Amino acid sequence: MSKGGVEVRRKGFEHERELARRLFKEGFAVIRAPASGAKVFRLIYPDVVAIYKNKVLVFEVKAYSSLRVVYIDARRYERLMTFAERSGGETYLAFKLIGTGEWRLVPFTKLEKTRSGVYRCGIGQLEIAEKLEDVIARVKRGQGHAHVSRTPT
Amino acid sequence: MSKGGVEVRRKGFEHERELARRLFKEGFAVIRAPASGAKVFRLIYPDVVAIYKNKVLVFEVKAYSSLRVVYIDARRYERLMTFAERSGGETYLAFKLIGTGEWRLVPFTKLEKTRSGVYRCGIGQLEIAEKLEDVIARVKRGQGHAHVSRTPT
Repeated sequence: MSKGGVEVRRKGFEHERELARRLFKEGFAVIRAPASGAKVFRLIYPDVVAIYKNKVLVFEVKAYSSLRVVYIDARRYERLMTFAERSGGETYLAFKLIGTGEWRLVPFTKLEKTRSGVYRCGIGQLEIAEKLEDVIARVKRGQGHAHVSRTPT
Repeated sequence: MSKGGVEVRRKGFEHERELARRLFKEGFAVIRAPASGAKVFRLIYPDVVAIYKNKVLVFEVKAYSSLRVVYIDARRYERLMTFAERSGGETYLAFKLIGTGEWRLVPFTKLEKTRSGVYRCGIGQLEIAEKLEDVIARVKRGQGHAHVSRTPT
């Protein structure tokens, strides 16, 4: 891996850690992915998993300084969806707007598969997305997950 | 850390990985603790967390070649109990009998606090403990967790 790649990954951890801490402060049990090892053990490691009284949230973390289209490769997408199905939880793209402290959450089920096979989250989806605090409040009220039907897999 | 300490830890990972794989094969979503980093981020990292349709199992892994008394220090015990409370799950001591492929599971709520403040699991408790496959079957049948009342914390 290039030095640039390492640097990007290190920064990624900072955002994952911020998300983990916010959820922890809100009373969730939180687990962050190992810094490495996913390849070693071939298990599925989401960036962050947060559990509140049996409700499971699975997060794929992205952080940019402005809203932009995000792509998730098919293998990663399917692994995280499998994790969610097994756990009974929901997987979210957690998009951090760097500098604002704001997180927008888009359920993976709302991402569109492109012709090239990757999953896409458009800027429009991010604009109308729930914010982290809204999802936290909804889960803590016991109103379950996002108001979307799961796509069959 | 001494070389010996590193070696012991490495072996510990092998047992955690075996437990993780068995649960994964049974359809659980499974997360293993990071190889390091717990100290860095100050979050609570159980050795293994396994989730099956919103039912959360938290494991502290010990492995020995024969049944023996196990002690869990108070700080570790309390952190794992907190994790279980937040997540709505149950924490187990997962005792592997090396060489037999057998795992005995004792709910943390059944451990006794000693005068010196550590938590103790006696040999008698291990002898009558549920086996891993029994706990898996119970959870998958949807019959919830161990038939024990939680001790107030």
